[in-house]
Amino acid sequence: MTTGLPMAFPTEGLPARVRVHEVGPRDGLQNEATLVPVEVKAEFVHRLADAGLRTVEVTSFVHPKWVPQLADAERLLPAVAGLADRPGADAVRLPVLVPNKRGLDRALALGARDVAVFASATESFARANLNRTVDESLEMFAPVVARAREAGAGARGYLSMCFGDPWEGPVPLDRVVGVCRRLLDLGCDELSLGDTIGVATPGHVTALLTALNEAGVPTGRLAVHFHDTYGQALANTLAALRHGVTTVDSSAGGLGGCPYARSATGNLATEDLVWMLHGLGIDTGIDLGRLTATSVWMADHLGRPSPSRTVRALAGRSTFQDVSRDSRDSHKEQ
Amino acid sequence: MTTGLPMAFPTEGLPARVRVHEVGPRDGLQNEATLVPVEVKAEFVHRLADAGLRTVEVTSFVHPKWVPQLADAERLLPAVAGLADRPGADAVRLPVLVPNKRGLDRALALGARDVAVFASATESFARANLNRTVDESLEMFAPVVARAREAGAGARGYLSMCFGDPWEGPVPLDRVVGVCRRLLDLGCDELSLGDTIGVATPGHVTALLTALNEAGVPTGRLAVHFHDTYGQALANTLAALRHGVTTVDSSAGGLGGCPYARSATGNLATEDLVWMLHGLGIDTGIDLGRLTATSVWMADHLGRPSPSRTVRALAGRSTFQDVSRDSRDSHKEQ
Repeated sequence: MTTGLPMAFPTEGLPARVRVHEVGPRDGLQNEATLVPVEVKAEFVHRLADAGLRTVEVTSFVHPKWVPQLADAERLLPAVAGLADRPGADAVRLPVLVPNKRGLDRALALGARDVAVFASATESFARANLNRTVDESLEMFAPVVARAREAGAGARGYLSMCFGDPWEGPVPLDRVVGVCRRLLDLGCDELSLGDTIGVATPGHVTALLTALNEAGVPTGRLAVHFHDTYGQALANTLAALRHGVTTVDSSAGGLGGCPYARSATGNLATEDLVWMLHGLGIDTGIDLGRLTATSVWMADHLGRPSPSRTVRALAGRSTFQDVSRDSRDSHKEQ
Repeated sequence: MTTGLPMAFPTEGLPARVRVHEVGPRDGLQNEATLVPVEVKAEFVHRLADAGLRTVEVTSFVHPKWVPQLADAERLLPAVAGLADRPGADAVRLPVLVPNKRGLDRALALGARDVAVFASATESFARANLNRTVDESLEMFAPVVARAREAGAGARGYLSMCFGDPWEGPVPLDRVVGVCRRLLDLGCDELSLGDTIGVATPGHVTALLTALNEAGVPTGRLAVHFHDTYGQALANTLAALRHGVTTVDSSAGGLGGCPYARSATGNLATEDLVWMLHGLGIDTGIDLGRLTATSVWMADHLGRPSPSRTVRALAGRSTFQDVSRDSRDSHKEQ
């Protein structure tokens, strides 16, 4: 990235710094068909840390029957735990997903200092994903979050289907606000608002954040988690930044969002996000070149190209001069 | 689109209506490897009109040696000209690109009422694309634009490399402003600001539009033409809308931007744009379902899937219920 691109244009009304919550090793690999060896995963997490990411969601302590891709959680977490002990600003937060009290106990026993629970804003998805009502799932999470906080761990609450639901269609704002309030009351210190099927648009994002503020939820407790299923993730992120959100979830190389797979969840690619943030003059601490190299390396392991547009644009082109041949050919003598 | 998605959230400070300038038949097909028969192109333009597009850039009167994909311009324009005579608000503008005076004469002889010239903000691209300096290319366009206006035709000026250039890197704002002023002085009634290599970010867009305003160029004369090479096109469009831009270029199905082609220019897909605009409560007059069906039909002709995320998300799924199976599978018991 010695080309001077993207040019940085600091923009009024946007945060000076954004924390990227990297979900590639967990949310990304969980949704990939290929089983990745634990050694490769550990190297992946280390490479992400070396590229400047300071929050890397590592794995999930779910029952291996449900997510075989993450069955190695008890070997992976110790293999990367040293990153959390790096000095000062180099320390990396390594949250793990815990589906229930048993999962939490396993995670805490391995020294986890940040955990996350995964709730749904809609009854349909709570039923499909957790085989529970929303109330029942929150009852299940209550002792998990309480125990985590007692142990001094951070507790993030994921909330899926915050904008649209595949069964129910549009999701009313007040429905989302209600579940958010309850997750905070349980003791979650951060909420990640998920657009699980990728249907949100920027005005919807602003409307939801405003409704949450009006219900007493401060923006500082909120992260956004957009999927690029309809290509809206980055525009939605821009709307969230304008509202003051400073924590954004994304997946290195767009892992988990292979565009031609039926099961694509379409995670926002960290590289596409970082290109925009750096163009806006927003500090992330991330080295885009090292991050892209990491995603290319992981794509090689998975045997398919990264769905990230920025990775595709930068990979294999040592300088911007390489781009010139394409532009010249395609626009010749228009 | 009977699902109620995207939900419409009209947003303060955005235009009530946007005119989409559809470039698929020209900019899109020009950059596709497959040669499309003229009958198919004519049907494509008609289908786009029937989907509600009211500006469809049809073709280019360039020498066939340079762009064999558009060598049928003299057969295609008469085959679609009737669309321009539809009554009232149903009339479709059918601009064509003209590289020089000879191309203009051919276009006017066939009844073209809107033409466009294609200039560059940078010397490197003017040299590569037109084998001329910027000055020489503007001298070449001067009589073209003058003659077009005398004949009562609209004259659009495309300006490429407005943000970054593959040889020169970052492009200074004042360089772009200077060429814009000269294109307006030639008589262009609209300028399309092109991010030909897709490197722009939203703050850069706002900075350029502001600089143009300060130089006396009103926003009402400006259109934006973003490429999705780095995934930024829609976020950049949002920034332009906030600045008051009401004309946005895009390509149905993302034609011309196949993500795995080395020659990809990465046109913003019209469907991804329309999803966002409708979500923002902005009127486009476009039927997204019919447009998506048109892009799927064209993708079949080209023998490859559309690179538009919205097309991929909607195509082959008769209802949103179909999405549910994917979400359920991929998130099962997190």
